[in-house]
Amino acid sequence: MIEKPRNKKASIYKPKPISGFPEWLPEERLAEQRWFDHIRKTFESYGFCSIETPSVEEIDVLLAKGEVDKEIYVLERLHKDEDSDKESRLALHFDQTVPFARYTAQHFNDLVFPFKRYQMQRVWRGERPQMGRMREFYQCDIDVINVDNLPLSFDSEIASMIYETLEGLNIGRVQLRISNRRILLGFIDGIEKKKHGTLILRILDKLEKIGEDAVLEELNAFPLDSYEKSTLLKIAQIKVSNSNALEASISKAIFPLEDIPHEDMIDGIHELKSVLDNLSHLPEGAVVADLSIVRGLDYYTGTVYETQLLDIPEYEGSVCSGGRYDDLAGQYINKHLPGVGISIGFSRLFDVIRQTHPEKLGIGPKSPTDILVYTENKNEAALAIKTAQTLRQQGLNVEVYHTVKKWDKHYKYAKNKMIPTICYPQDDVNAKFKNVESGEENIQALSDWNKS
Amino acid sequence: MIEKPRNKKASIYKPKPISGFPEWLPEERLAEQRWFDHIRKTFESYGFCSIETPSVEEIDVLLAKGEVDKEIYVLERLHKDEDSDKESRLALHFDQTVPFARYTAQHFNDLVFPFKRYQMQRVWRGERPQMGRMREFYQCDIDVINVDNLPLSFDSEIASMIYETLEGLNIGRVQLRISNRRILLGFIDGIEKKKHGTLILRILDKLEKIGEDAVLEELNAFPLDSYEKSTLLKIAQIKVSNSNALEASISKAIFPLEDIPHEDMIDGIHELKSVLDNLSHLPEGAVVADLSIVRGLDYYTGTVYETQLLDIPEYEGSVCSGGRYDDLAGQYINKHLPGVGISIGFSRLFDVIRQTHPEKLGIGPKSPTDILVYTENKNEAALAIKTAQTLRQQGLNVEVYHTVKKWDKHYKYAKNKMIPTICYPQDDVNAKFKNVESGEENIQALSDWNKS
Repeated sequence: MIEKPRNKKASIYKPKPISGFPEWLPEERLAEQRWFDHIRKTFESYGFCSIETPSVEEIDVLLAKGEVDKEIYVLERLHKDEDSDKESRLALHFDQTVPFARYTAQHFNDLVFPFKRYQMQRVWRGERPQMGRMREFYQCDIDVINVDNLPLSFDSEIASMIYETLEGLNIGRVQLRISNRRILLGFIDGIEKKKHGTLILRILDKLEKIGEDAVLEELNAFPLDSYEKSTLLKIAQIKVSNSNALEASISKAIFPLEDIPHEDMIDGIHELKSVLDNLSHLPEGAVVADLSIVRGLDYYTGTVYETQLLDIPEYEGSVCSGGRYDDLAGQYINKHLPGVGISIGFSRLFDVIRQTHPEKLGIGPKSPTDILVYTENKNEAALAIKTAQTLRQQGLNVEVYHTVKKWDKHYKYAKNKMIPTICYPQDDVNAKFKNVESGEENIQALSDWNKS
Repeated sequence: MIEKPRNKKASIYKPKPISGFPEWLPEERLAEQRWFDHIRKTFESYGFCSIETPSVEEIDVLLAKGEVDKEIYVLERLHKDEDSDKESRLALHFDQTVPFARYTAQHFNDLVFPFKRYQMQRVWRGERPQMGRMREFYQCDIDVINVDNLPLSFDSEIASMIYETLEGLNIGRVQLRISNRRILLGFIDGIEKKKHGTLILRILDKLEKIGEDAVLEELNAFPLDSYEKSTLLKIAQIKVSNSNALEASISKAIFPLEDIPHEDMIDGIHELKSVLDNLSHLPEGAVVADLSIVRGLDYYTGTVYETQLLDIPEYEGSVCSGGRYDDLAGQYINKHLPGVGISIGFSRLFDVIRQTHPEKLGIGPKSPTDILVYTENKNEAALAIKTAQTLRQQGLNVEVYHTVKKWDKHYKYAKNKMIPTICYPQDDVNAKFKNVESGEENIQALSDWNKS
């Protein structure tokens, strides 16, 4: 035992949490690990491979598409020297899409296409500290990309994966809301208002938030006649759960499908129908076609996804969003790489559940320990270690309580950490096992333990 | 199918690797994941819990012990505003010890002691880019700390864990080199040269590197007589594999144990003997007591560890080092928290093996996929999806090849990714399974597959 007299420290720097940088206690971290493990397992069950990119990119890479609206953290060496200015400036990545695009371009010749990858890393936003806004958080992204063209079947596969992923977290009903941007954009193009396309979509996107009247009001800013405005609104209001209902609603809102004069719009409808058909194995209510979903970004060119947690009203907005894009990495490589992907805002979701529905996380145990081994007799230390090793070989997580003290000390330790079982070794093969919760005791062979 | 004419981009920013920030291909990442999984599983089998701390700390926290010799990356918001100067400055952590100390102090009342944690995160060193020097890398740390005192048994437990961890990576023979700083420091204290203690240790630490004569030469800088110098050297040259041999060598180098006049030295010998005794279950050669191991840091106060990979000469130095310290977090909290811990320099080790012994990583498959499902008939797309789902429910990782093309395209895909099996569904329950390597084909029930 090494012991030294305790020195009272003259000056202590009392640490405090840093706004926007979440940190969990061990029991919360265990729940977070279970979530990560489940998500990874689901992604891998579809054959997606993991990649990780560095936490940083060159600033020129981050800004290759032009200014970004995300706040960026730049790195500076604390002790700069004359070389510092010659190096390219590095910044923490603010999402996983830009690094994924850069990775694909850089390693293009080493990848097999279609390239299906998942990525679960921290991202950073250099925002001003404010309530509830995270500056460091995990995202879980999946994307499939291919050279030149990518089958539409992936659009439903991604939706299926994400449903299975979120459903397995046991946080209540999950609803995927799917649309296809070509439907509304095709219509807008058809009435020759293409140059206003994105702006009009952004207004229709607000339908659920601001309501019908406000949307019509805002549409007045564009040269649309009242038929066009009301048709746009009727389309955006379509919310159905299968492809037949989709076709019927569209016929009602505008024309029967075969009479629609806008080719891109028809393609969009066919794509959306096909995606819905491929998701018909999911439970009732798991998927809706919601034509008001457009996603703000210009980036998306076809299918778009949002996801609602119907039993977690505290989570505002979409927990997981994405879509089909036409070209992933055009700014880094002269290849046409269409893809489809989706991203879970992991840390925000975890934090909302932690704060509002902690019971859904199974928080309790403070370690992964299954069994605590203890012997009262100091001479039996070697026996305790050997017993623990035997139990570990059976796949159990085992701690030895090394301090031989009065009876209740090790018991209190097991209780506080919620370790379910204490093992009191008797000899090389047998031990007394005590259920910490019930107090029940049994003498058993060590080798039988994992079978019980 | 969504296709657009390919636009040739006028300006393309061709990305390149950033010096010191490693990035792996999918097949390398799979190997890295296997390493992480193994390390985590071993740590958890001893009941250690995971924690993660933010990537950043306040600069004042990082520097609370005084200037550090590690290079630090400070964060700057790209778009600063008048608030920026009011915030405390944040910097990326350069190790996991400082964040762990801060975490323990900050959450002291929520933790159960002895607190056993592992931590596997990236750390950053803001160094000038240079060959082979990593600026971002993973470390895997384990520590146990307790309030006021911590049983010595943990010193051998940590050694045992780390042996099991490294041994399980299948990179050849692992040798732990263990010493106890109190032995040499106790002797130096006994001959009243205490104030030179750390400097003398640093010289003895170089014994293996610079040899006996050079060490004696450097010791001339201190007021030591020739008996003292030669005794120091004799002690540092002790290298034995069990506690009996340790006692014999010490008797030979200085006095029989019972005659040694230096109390602290005797304590150190007893501690080291006890640690060796508790590790006697490890294979011959796994552990040596090597009294030249002292670790440069003032920080350590008893047991010290280094680890050598005997079959990987390309890895210079210790792959994993640590020791016993007297007080973890004195700069942040008025509690006396002794502990013992060790740290694996994960990324450097992985990279050395990747470059020099890639065969030891089992690199090959480019995804975790077990089976690729393919149907030539476009109308059977739903059957392919259903078949994949059935196989997934059996715990398999399954991809569907969504493009229906000429025969060899999907086969080439499986071959390139090293997917071992292709499944051609026949109906809801049966399929033809093809071994990609051998070409062998079998018709089997889907439900039988995982049994074969």
